[in-house]
Order: sequence, then C-alpha cells, then structure tokens
Amino acid sequence: MLKIVGFGSGAKDNMTLEASAAISSAQLIVGYNTYVDILKQYFPDKEYYSTNMMQEKERCQYAIDMANEGRDVVLVCSGDSGVYGMASLVYELADEGTDIKVISGVTAANSGAACLGAPLSHDFAVISLSDCMTPWELIKKRIRAMAESDMVMCIYNPSSRRRAGYLKEACDIVMEVQPADTVCGYVRNIGRDNETAGVLTLKELADFKADMFTTVYIGNSHTKIINGKMVTPRGYKVV
Amino acid sequence: MLKIVGFGSGAKDNMTLEASAAISSAQLIVGYNTYVDILKQYFPDKEYYSTNMMQEKERCQYAIDMANEGRDVVLVCSGDSGVYGMASLVYELADEGTDIKVISGVTAANSGAACLGAPLSHDFAVISLSDCMTPWELIKKRIRAMAESDMVMCIYNPSSRRRAGYLKEACDIVMEVQPADTVCGYVRNIGRDNETAGVLTLKELADFKADMFTTVYIGNSHTKIINGKMVTPRGYKVV
Ligand SMILES: C[S@@+](CC[C@H](N)C(=O)[O-])C[C@H]1O[C@@H](n2cnc3c(N)ncnc32)[C@H](O)[C@@H]1O
Ligand SMILES: C[S@@+](CC[C@H](N)C(=O)[O-])C[C@H]1O[C@@H](n2cnc3c(N)ncnc32)[C@H](O)[C@@H]1O
Repeated sequence: MLKIVGFGSGAKDNMTLEASAAISSAQLIVGYNTYVDILKQYFPDKEYYSTNMMQEKERCQYAIDMANEGRDVVLVCSGDSGVYGMASLVYELADEGTDIKVISGVTAANSGAACLGAPLSHDFAVISLSDCMTPWELIKKRIRAMAESDMVMCIYNPSSRRRAGYLKEACDIVMEVQPADTVCGYVRNIGRDNETAGVLTLKELADFKADMFTTVYIGNSHTKIINGKMVTPRGYKVV
Repeated sequence: MLKIVGFGSGAKDNMTLEASAAISSAQLIVGYNTYVDILKQYFPDKEYYSTNMMQEKERCQYAIDMANEGRDVVLVCSGDSGVYGMASLVYELADEGTDIKVISGVTAANSGAACLGAPLSHDFAVISLSDCMTPWELIKKRIRAMAESDMVMCIYNPSSRRRAGYLKEACDIVMEVQPADTVCGYVRNIGRDNETAGVLTLKELADFKADMFTTVYIGNSHTKIINGKMVTPRGYKVV
C-alpha cells in the first residue's frame, strides 16, 4: 500500500489526524530531504528514504516499487500532496496493480491565509510562478485573466534565484487592471521557525524579495485591511 | 479568546491536531446546526451553541461577545474556516479588542481531490456558484476567464433548489472553449456517510444533478483519466 500524505505547513499540529496516523504506522517514509528532516523531529524512530529536490521521479518510483513489494509506504509532501505535489506523478508512474491512497492535508494557501487573516474568503486562484514545467507566457496569461475577473490570487513558488524578476512582472500585469494600492500579503516559513507575515500594497509587493519558502496573496477589489489583517469579504453585498 | 476553526471534511481524522485540541479545550463551541451535530459525535461532553444556516451574523456576534466576556470560544466551520467560511465575517464584526485566531483546515477542494485522484496538481481556481452574495453575471465572467486560461476549476455550492440550472449554465460556458469530453469529477459527502465520487465528461456534468453537499471539478486540457482516477499532470512537459 502506498499512501501519498500531505503533512501541512510543517508545524506538527497542522497535520491531520489521518496523516499523523499514516506516518506513525508506516514501514517506510519516502520524501524530499527537507521534508524528511521536519518529520524526523516528530517521528524519530522510523525508517526514512530521502533524496534531494531534483530526484522526484526517482523518489516516486522507489516508493511505488517498495509498495509493490508489499511494504506499507508513505510518500510525504508538505501541505497537500495533490497541490504541486507528488500525487499526480505517482499516478502517472504507477500501474494498475499498485494500491494508492491520497491523504489530503492543509495546503500553504490555507495555512498562510490563517496567518494573514481571511484573504481567501471568496473565489480565488492558486497559481505557481515556476516555469520549470509551464511556459511563462501561459502563467502570465492566467495572471491577467484572474486580475481581469477580480479573483483573489494565491501565488506559490513566487521566486527563485533564476526567476528573480517574475513576481515583479506578475504584479505589473495585475497593476494594469487593479489599483497600485490593492491589498496584498505574504507569509514566509508558515508553521516553521522564523514564520513571518505581512500585509502590503500591490506596488510594494512588486519590489518585495520573496523566496521559495514564501506564499503570496493578491487581493481583489473588495479586499481590505481590518486591524492589521488582510480580509476579503465573503460577498459583495454588505454585512 | 476566539478561535475560528475549520474541522475539515467531517471525518474526524481529516481534522488537524490543532483543530482537535482547540475543540477539546474550548469552553464553548459555536456553529451551524449540521456542523455541531457532526462534532457532538467526536466531542460529546462539550457546551455547544448552534443556530441554523441563515443566522450566520448572529452566530458570529454571539461568539465574539462570549469571547469578549473572557470565555474560550471556538467558532467551527467545515473545511477551512477561511474558504467561504466565517473568518472574514468575524473580522468584519469584531473590534480591535477581540483576541482572534484562525486555525486552518483541509478545505473541500483538497479533501475531495484526494477521493478523485489528483485533479488539482496544477494551477486551479476555487469558485462558488452561490449568487446569494455575488452577482451571477460576475460568476459567469470568472468561469469564462478560467476556461479561457486553461485553469482547472473546483466548484463549491454547485446547486440548490433555487439555482437548479446554474451548474449546466457554467458547463455550457466552459464548453464554448473546452471540448465536451474534458475530464470532470464530483465528490458528494466527502468524509461523511454515503461519500460518493465519480469521474465524468464535461458534457455529462452539464446534466449532472449536484446538491449542496457536492464539490465539482472541471479539468483543463491536460487532465486525464488514469486507472479510473482524475489526474492533472503537474506540468506541460513530459514526465
Ligand atoms: C512545490 S510547492 C508545494 C506546495 C505544497 N504541496 C502545498 O500544498 O502547500 C512549494 C511552494 O509552496 C509554498 N509553501 C509550501 N510550504 C510553505 C511554507 N511552510 N511556508 C510558506 N510557503 C510554503 C511556497 O510558495 C513554495 O514555493
Ligand atoms: C459554504 S461552503 C463551505 C466550504 C468550507 N468552509 C470548506 O472550506 O470546505 C459549502 C460548500 O463546500 C463544499 N463542501 C463542504 N463540505 C463538503 C463535504 N463534506 N462534501 C462535499 N462538499 C463539501 C460544497 O460544495 C458545499 O456546497
């Protein structure tokens, strides 16, 4: 049996009871180094197999092979394993005979939103700025479409060394349709040491230095700041 | 202290450890009848205050008032409390003095996705078809924008007696740009008795009778069926 488990932000208590039970009872836990290091703090006496970031396919294949040999394997991802996670890759690599179960978790969009207030209380889009597997032109088209239809956006993978100017480009596209003082927010290291969160304007966000452990929020025309929190009302009719 | 807690799908093990601890230790749990009935199964010996669906504002105000009187209050929502939930309403109603903490949970988009396979592995949008608080014209505009930019869509509140034709209208809009055999899915009663899930085409979804306990998924041009599961690949470059 292969369980693909999202463990939430990284704080132990952001894990679901099911994820925690699956990890506790697994015979083998497979994952990316950084994630395995987090889990070792909470579940020290387990067998782990970890590889580095680039070896995703190899890691999934190893988990599948071990499950096919009859072991109880858990493949771990941060957040939810279905959101830019390993679940789809496992389905693509496995064959019919492999017994697969996806166990959902709290994705960064939601754990980060709780730090900021309530930015995602109305229709929203989750978009990654990583162009490793998606053409940058398509990503920009999506950002424009979301801005034009006044959707709140939650941005994953906002930056990396190679893509340093992407967040600024994304903000500039949004500023063609939304005002420069649109309420935005960021959360870095959600549920981990040095968690930091802040509310800022769209114009400020364009110059913000996000890293790969940051999740970014761009409000819609109704998003406001209430006592320092970023809040998108649930509807367009008054409370 | 007022904690606004999302308890996940309704299955106890979809709850986070933090949500479970907050509910266990609360002096008063406030929520919508149906949700309180779910929680009473897991936490029978607690003090509850429940009201029916229409009394959201009153319920939030009651929770705020009790917290301001110094009680440890938990306001519960299904899924994540920030997604079409009570968190934003509380921020709008409370004043600076109220001590508020949002505790994130697994939203229906993610718990339902795990039942279907991995439909949300790439950029996606969460949209509600409820026009109680949003004009139907804006909702349709958003759906068209999502379809035109090839975003996977996850639809909440797909139907109610009064809005029986809305899901069909939404699918018809998508069919203007995406093929009728686009892979779609639905999950009803996620994590509750009689959970059912299915994969179907966009054309079939247009005639599907969804109810208010259903979450619906519309794939993008890359979404496919693998061994009966709905899977959106993580990227547009081959595995
Ligand atoms: C490859 S994606 C993985 C997403 C993960 N499966 C989830 O559902 O949260 C990595 C991106 O998720 C976001 N992210 C994941 N965990 C985070 C955390 N603890 N704090 C801030 N952002 C996080 C960041 O935007 C990061 O660049
Ligand atoms: C008012 S919204 C509440 C969403 C909730 N706060 C969340 O994050 O999941 C209600 C809609 O959420 C979806 N939903 C919530 N719980 C569900 C469940 N257990 N099964 C299926 N759909 C659910 C349905 O689309 C329903 O119409």
